[in-house]
Amino acid sequence: MRMSRYFLPVLKETPSEAQIVSHRYMLRAGMIKQSSAGIYSWLPLGYKVLKKIENIVHEEQSRAGHLPMLMPTIQSADLWRESGRYEAFGDEMLRIKDRHDRDMLFTPTAEELITDIFRSHVNSYKDLPLTMYQIQWKFRDEVRPRFGVMRGREFYMKDGYNFDLTKEDALHAYNRHLVSYLRTYERMGLQAIPMRADSGAMGGDNTHEFLVLAETGESEVFYDSAVTDLTFGDREIDYDNVEQCAGVMEEFTTKYARTDETHDEALFNEVPEERRKVARGIEVGQIFYFGTKYSEAMKATVQGPDGKPVPVHMGSHGIGVSRLLGAIIEASHDDKGIIWPEGVTPFHCGIVNLKQGDEEADGACEALYKSLTALGLEPLYDDRNERAGGKFATMDLIGLPWRITVGPRGLKNGVVELTSRRTGESEEMPPEDAVKKIAAIYAEH
Amino acid sequence: MRMSRYFLPVLKETPSEAQIVSHRYMLRAGMIKQSSAGIYSWLPLGYKVLKKIENIVHEEQSRAGHLPMLMPTIQSADLWRESGRYEAFGDEMLRIKDRHDRDMLFTPTAEELITDIFRSHVNSYKDLPLTMYQIQWKFRDEVRPRFGVMRGREFYMKDGYNFDLTKEDALHAYNRHLVSYLRTYERMGLQAIPMRADSGAMGGDNTHEFLVLAETGESEVFYDSAVTDLTFGDREIDYDNVEQCAGVMEEFTTKYARTDETHDEALFNEVPEERRKVARGIEVGQIFYFGTKYSEAMKATVQGPDGKPVPVHMGSHGIGVSRLLGAIIEASHDDKGIIWPEGVTPFHCGIVNLKQGDEEADGACEALYKSLTALGLEPLYDDRNERAGGKFATMDLIGLPWRITVGPRGLKNGVVELTSRRTGESEEMPPEDAVKKIAAIYAEH
Repeated sequence: MRMSRYFLPVLKETPSEAQIVSHRYMLRAGMIKQSSAGIYSWLPLGYKVLKKIENIVHEEQSRAGHLPMLMPTIQSADLWRESGRYEAFGDEMLRIKDRHDRDMLFTPTAEELITDIFRSHVNSYKDLPLTMYQIQWKFRDEVRPRFGVMRGREFYMKDGYNFDLTKEDALHAYNRHLVSYLRTYERMGLQAIPMRADSGAMGGDNTHEFLVLAETGESEVFYDSAVTDLTFGDREIDYDNVEQCAGVMEEFTTKYARTDETHDEALFNEVPEERRKVARGIEVGQIFYFGTKYSEAMKATVQGPDGKPVPVHMGSHGIGVSRLLGAIIEASHDDKGIIWPEGVTPFHCGIVNLKQGDEEADGACEALYKSLTALGLEPLYDDRNERAGGKFATMDLIGLPWRITVGPRGLKNGVVELTSRRTGESEEMPPEDAVKKIAAIYAEH
Repeated sequence: MRMSRYFLPVLKETPSEAQIVSHRYMLRAGMIKQSSAGIYSWLPLGYKVLKKIENIVHEEQSRAGHLPMLMPTIQSADLWRESGRYEAFGDEMLRIKDRHDRDMLFTPTAEELITDIFRSHVNSYKDLPLTMYQIQWKFRDEVRPRFGVMRGREFYMKDGYNFDLTKEDALHAYNRHLVSYLRTYERMGLQAIPMRADSGAMGGDNTHEFLVLAETGESEVFYDSAVTDLTFGDREIDYDNVEQCAGVMEEFTTKYARTDETHDEALFNEVPEERRKVARGIEVGQIFYFGTKYSEAMKATVQGPDGKPVPVHMGSHGIGVSRLLGAIIEASHDDKGIIWPEGVTPFHCGIVNLKQGDEEADGACEALYKSLTALGLEPLYDDRNERAGGKFATMDLIGLPWRITVGPRGLKNGVVELTSRRTGESEEMPPEDAVKKIAAIYAEH
């Protein structure tokens, strides 16, 4: 993309309404624009990151064998009355009357509707196990929406639902989700720690939240520092292998890691003192096993092997897709702007032309642009007639992990400069080497 | 995908509420499920086609240089009061009060919000031209939703908006959209004819609707049969070339083609009698140039070259993404089911194992599955323990364009059967030739 053709409305001033760094930078980098309290438009740069994150979620869910589908945003109140949640949800539910005066609502989550789909179509235990998920817009009418996309009213969420014959099978689905979530967050450059959580209004016993450590997190968390040494890495996983998935679950959830809701001081004190950590965290996902809560209320049964009807065991599993942009920025930035991890960066690298209009510099930039594009990479080429300082400031703010700087002086020696946004280190090299180096970096992402 | 792991709730009976063939087949093939009147869930198979269609739209918009972004579904009524459309829209607008009793609505279209984004960030003619678009859920509270996804209340739409300094520039944007739409529909296997249309409540003079001829179409159309000979094909187009885009516009819109809203009997009678056709059509898209209607009402001006403020010239351009599934099925089916064009088929081919459990047949199917997958193709393998007749009926109903049938008898002679869904013709060949043939077909799509 050429900057001259892009819509990147960078703000020089810090918007006064933004209290946390991710909100500030997303506004300043022209990624989002508020349209009403807690409701945002996603401008091209923000949209691009949102899609990258969504895509990683899809790929990892597909790898785990979960089926993508989509449920509508506007749902009838009837199903929610069946489960008893129409009243229970309170004022956070956006309630709507349609032109025929029927009670409708904007979906805050979708246990009821997926259960209805299930009970309409699945009759036999032979059709189990089944896990379906969607990535769809949700609405929760927060009293005080704040922190930008971290706590918006309209938000983009992955919500998945498993249907199993037995508790044992459903716990395998739970473990499968834990593994797929670990992979998902790591691909985004995040360490998200599964912590024992409170099941709240959703019901059920088994639930973990995934938290990213960040000073601006809304939850206080208590953990054994040894959990931060754990990484899933590139190990192979067979999602059908019950023991293998259970092993990962055990590895990642045995050490002490809890939010304040479930914190147990006595247990925490058994952790060696030097490893006891208290910090703040941002919740970026949650997995639940809630058994037969909805299947019993809504009569979602299958015929078991003995011919008798059995209510299915269910769980639901969520990832806050739009919120993740905020979480990633909270975890990865400096005082100049965002620092995108390679896995989610909107463009793979920036090209800064120090002397737009100089024939040699323009030619070298065009050649770099073509070489990178031919390799399937997406560069953002700042081809505007601006001063170098302004171009650098914009690149630093929007946080592309790599920048190639092209100027007449370097070109005389046959070199351009390749700069890492994270370390700030620069290296001079021939243009073709810069291309090779960037291609090699992204081959790993 | 293996059928045993897929969620494909095929219905044997024809649902009584479905009046047209696309609605019937989408329900029977387990693509959608109604959740309320005119509101549907997209089950895995339907979701897959929806995403294929969405992806083609994105690719062609990107090729035309249009920038993707996303606006929220829930918008404040304030902007709509500014343009005067809050009242004008009537009961089709889904009006909502949030918990603070503020007037909100579910977006039926987004001229107001995009204009607000534009006026907040763009000040100079130097930042033009600019075209942004989104693919987002919309809601129109139809009195009588019907025909499945063809006329639903919640629907998925691409809506794009161009901002230009002059009428001339805006008409180039109009032409660019026409060209990109022609390419888009052709890639989906559709002939969508641009017809002169009525601008209705949107205002403006220049507008064309794209119509797919189908008996079940809601519009009566009148056209010179010579328009159906026109195809865009694989010609190269430079979207920056004003003359080239204008040439395509002229080529595709000069011959008589109008809906009943703009039909002119006298002009029509100038068409040679044998080429005068009256038929029915399904609207799958529309392009508009409406000048300064919104920019004047909402004060969206830029500083012109002479330093004076100028209201920008705008247009908006829509493609009915969810509706396209219905239109494609209306245009491409037989009495056994859907016939997907290669460009949008949910799976590239089906594999039918005639004797599940037979070692040789199972092995050959697995080998085919692996070879196709390794080439980046997605087969749907019917690995269920069912009779051949049932498997064939399902494959015909869901409409994959190619089917490979594998049975012990053929394998004795080293062959499988490759069948075209469209022609019904079958050919015996070694498995590796079937793979090659399918790969060659999709290399062109």
